[in-house]
Amino acid sequence: MNKKYKNSHRENSHQENFAYGLHSVCSVLTEESTEIISLWINQNREDQQIEKIKILAYTRGVTPFFVTQKNLDDLSLGANHQGVAVQFLTQLPTTEDQLFTLLKGLTDSPFLLILDSIQDPHNLGACLRTAEAAGVHGVIVPKDQAVSITSTVRKVASGAAERVPFITVTNLTRTINKLKDQGVWVVGAVVSEGTSLYQMELKGSIAVVLGAEGKGLRRLVQTHCDYLASIPMCGAIGSLNVSVATGVFLFEIQRQRGYLN
Amino acid sequence: MNKKYKNSHRENSHQENFAYGLHSVCSVLTEESTEIISLWINQNREDQQIEKIKILAYTRGVTPFFVTQKNLDDLSLGANHQGVAVQFLTQLPTTEDQLFTLLKGLTDSPFLLILDSIQDPHNLGACLRTAEAAGVHGVIVPKDQAVSITSTVRKVASGAAERVPFITVTNLTRTINKLKDQGVWVVGAVVSEGTSLYQMELKGSIAVVLGAEGKGLRRLVQTHCDYLASIPMCGAIGSLNVSVATGVFLFEIQRQRGYLN
Repeated sequence: MNKKYKNSHRENSHQENFAYGLHSVCSVLTEESTEIISLWINQNREDQQIEKIKILAYTRGVTPFFVTQKNLDDLSLGANHQGVAVQFLTQLPTTEDQLFTLLKGLTDSPFLLILDSIQDPHNLGACLRTAEAAGVHGVIVPKDQAVSITSTVRKVASGAAERVPFITVTNLTRTINKLKDQGVWVVGAVVSEGTSLYQMELKGSIAVVLGAEGKGLRRLVQTHCDYLASIPMCGAIGSLNVSVATGVFLFEIQRQRGYLN
Repeated sequence: MNKKYKNSHRENSHQENFAYGLHSVCSVLTEESTEIISLWINQNREDQQIEKIKILAYTRGVTPFFVTQKNLDDLSLGANHQGVAVQFLTQLPTTEDQLFTLLKGLTDSPFLLILDSIQDPHNLGACLRTAEAAGVHGVIVPKDQAVSITSTVRKVASGAAERVPFITVTNLTRTINKLKDQGVWVVGAVVSEGTSLYQMELKGSIAVVLGAEGKGLRRLVQTHCDYLASIPMCGAIGSLNVSVATGVFLFEIQRQRGYLN
């Protein structure tokens, strides 16, 4: 894979992807929203399907690299590439509509993080990094009274800001209600009230809502959650940084969902 | 309780405590390492045991407050105070010897956090805050190549630096071996090698060792651990801030130990 693009921090929210096989490569080339970085074709293959891919590529102004079978084997780590592979960028969803399109296309149950009114860029960056490591499908934030993705956020997120869909919505409670209509359980993280995280069954489609440090979830947001959950504390002070609380919540949910082995 | 002392951030590592009942108050007054803040005695009680407490107090230069039964009920939140209550400071252990004395006195299984070579004061502060919330009995750090408790650490720790025993040792691997001799299982947190945290049985006496971000555990420290464990990552980047990793590790261990309900 082209190392030049690997882990590059792009200013726009793009996700780098790699696909191989006739059907997948064809899909990528016909999808207008993708940006093709490199296309590799086995130099010894000449058939109708490969011809179709070449035409699609030239139509988009993409010049393929004609390489050996061995080159393609290496690129695809030994997978069945059928003589073609492509490296491309997709734009990450940023709007509510794009979020719901993303959710429709998922093969597993949606797993989302909602951050209510986080104003500290370090906290947002740390939450994004944690969310990416825990494998959430997207992070949702309100447009107002919250920090957006700044250079500090990107730096603290250590690459996660370019990988995790970051969706800004104008009315957070409306989005929460839409998610509930789609069968997503919305769990609000609170400090003391609420059921212990470890006493809840947290499987299926889930969105976790965490609030700003100190203030916590806004009351209006709380009332729209299906459940309120808290992390049981063992110490005397009993407070966690929001990114640590995010980590404890997300990894416990993934454990219960059976994604952590 | 005297609000003046509650949550006060003292420069020395002292823990504020409250005790009531004849036996407990007597113990506190006879323990030389304690510092008495306030001693309350029921103004209507006159018997041999109360006389003994008065003598112990005057010998130490402590002047008791003579108060009503109602005052003591309020102070002790309705508990059986037997007419006496005391607020006092104990010095937190800071040396290896004091650590082992602390462990001997525990009624439940030791639960320790070892931080290897953490040099960023924000990370150390965040780890202390997380450790306090997860209820560890102490945090152990090496004397060299690690940040000690600075004002930044205290600020980020949000009060935890004054509550969690913070033990500095000259030879970390020697301390690890001593802990193992005392029946403590030492689990090293690693990024990719090692068994999944969720596949391990993490009960009984445990010390978790986490390393500096980027570098991880030093090889020498790793070789002295009983087990190596890692947090399974779901994302493509798959890296966590050390305080988040600490939170995920410590809360999962407490869940398995049955402390989180």
